[in-house]
Amino acid sequence: MYDMIIVGAGTAGLTAGIYALRSGVKPLILECEAMGGQITLSPCVENYPGIAKISGMEFADGLMAQLTNLGGEVTFGRVISTRKIDNGFEVCTEDGETYEGKNLIIASGAAHRHLGIEREQELIGRGVSYCAVCDGPFFKEKTAAVVGGGSAALQDALYLAGICSKVYLIHRRDTFRAEKSLIDQVMAAENIECVMESRVTALIGEKKLTELEVTNLSGEKKTLVADGLFVAIGMEPHNEVFRDLVDLDEAGYVIAGENCKTRTPGVYAAGDCRTKTVRQLTTAAADGTVCGLVCKAV
Amino acid sequence: MYDMIIVGAGTAGLTAGIYALRSGVKPLILECEAMGGQITLSPCVENYPGIAKISGMEFADGLMAQLTNLGGEVTFGRVISTRKIDNGFEVCTEDGETYEGKNLIIASGAAHRHLGIEREQELIGRGVSYCAVCDGPFFKEKTAAVVGGGSAALQDALYLAGICSKVYLIHRRDTFRAEKSLIDQVMAAENIECVMESRVTALIGEKKLTELEVTNLSGEKKTLVADGLFVAIGMEPHNEVFRDLVDLDEAGYVIAGENCKTRTPGVYAAGDCRTKTVRQLTTAAADGTVCGLVCKAV
Repeated sequence: MYDMIIVGAGTAGLTAGIYALRSGVKPLILECEAMGGQITLSPCVENYPGIAKISGMEFADGLMAQLTNLGGEVTFGRVISTRKIDNGFEVCTEDGETYEGKNLIIASGAAHRHLGIEREQELIGRGVSYCAVCDGPFFKEKTAAVVGGGSAALQDALYLAGICSKVYLIHRRDTFRAEKSLIDQVMAAENIECVMESRVTALIGEKKLTELEVTNLSGEKKTLVADGLFVAIGMEPHNEVFRDLVDLDEAGYVIAGENCKTRTPGVYAAGDCRTKTVRQLTTAAADGTVCGLVCKAV
Repeated sequence: MYDMIIVGAGTAGLTAGIYALRSGVKPLILECEAMGGQITLSPCVENYPGIAKISGMEFADGLMAQLTNLGGEVTFGRVISTRKIDNGFEVCTEDGETYEGKNLIIASGAAHRHLGIEREQELIGRGVSYCAVCDGPFFKEKTAAVVGGGSAALQDALYLAGICSKVYLIHRRDTFRAEKSLIDQVMAAENIECVMESRVTALIGEKKLTELEVTNLSGEKKTLVADGLFVAIGMEPHNEVFRDLVDLDEAGYVIAGENCKTRTPGVYAAGDCRTKTVRQLTTAAADGTVCGLVCKAV
């Protein structure tokens, strides 16, 4: 039986692993996709304190090296079920393995929803982004567009309005589903133009994004000049396999506070998979720190 | 009037500044001592995710460079009073300056209490440390001593017991002031030896610490072989000047949760000065991130 099982090898999971190893605890770390998690999709990270500029892949490599130097490793495995057992928890993976641990750290992350249109994947880091706070400053005094109509989309538009010369806010409905104060701020912002009842239907530009084709409900198409497109149509956490151990909120995030404790003693949630308002590398690393120390009751 | 005044240029304050600048907000950052805060006292940092090894001073220099590259700067000033004014807050410094800001971020940090004995300062980073979680791994399979009798000291002893071959726990009283579960764990640990009713009275060793002189209540002296000395006799936050705006807990920390909000709208607390359980670079950076975005209502 492991002292600690960590599900997910993104920033939160790897930080938890690093702190655990430093304290003398060797955790089992399970990952089913890319070592390093979501950040590996970011071509350029400039908002991590202490590192001026780094690619997401390099950042993840650095974390992995820190873990490895401490004698840690990541095991490949997609978790398909979890349950409480005597003195701990049992975790089963798709390939038929069963693991037991005294503590379980859920660091399963959350993926940004994509528009699902052509060239979207190809233009990530070349104009297409899913995080305004991370990538907005790359579009200083340029034109950006935000897709979405919820609070997150409006916050992104307001954030970008402080950086970009012009921001389009493109939404498929005729009204926003957001707090009134955000809607008021968007309406008052001189450099935000709302494009309602419309979808982005094509991404235009050779090596990087330069224009968007937007189609409205009547089928009319128009072209908007835009250097950046921020897709803010939600995130998808994948926490269904932990449902018997933890409470999930409406959107599927594991309900846990700053101490990362869930409703089940011994089960913790760290990083993007947890209920929180700011999902950044820093906040994932903070959660990983807290969880990495749980075996020592700090 | 500034959009944001940040008091303190440690990891939390500088991170808040970096995030604010990236969002298009230029904050006033006030610091009365060392740029970079407490971490500048750490000769070697190995527990910051993404940076395998760095001196505290270099880490702080990196943060300062990130701030400066974004057009930010730190202003020298010791805050002596703060008060609520129309639409914001007024901050006065010792040198007679008065500043006004719409939002106030308290990132004033907290200093570790020192023993106040000879050679203590000189041996910091050469055996003397104030953070077991930060520096414990430097003493792997060596002998360490912890001074203190509260929960933090016992947690440090237990943390070190998982790394070091032997741990002395030195306390001036005959009983510990800590949770019973911690005391039970300390008593059960085979490699922790409690040295009660005793004080460390001298630090011995040429270039680095090798031995401690310990004196008990009867004045008897003995020498303990120890490579490391972890001083865990508390921290001292300095938040008295903010008392009219925020609530402080018994120990003097600003009462605020993960969203860093204090009882006064517009006043936030970030980093070590805030009520929290884990005070690490990562958790300070997370708070700085949250506070740096407050002008954008994220």
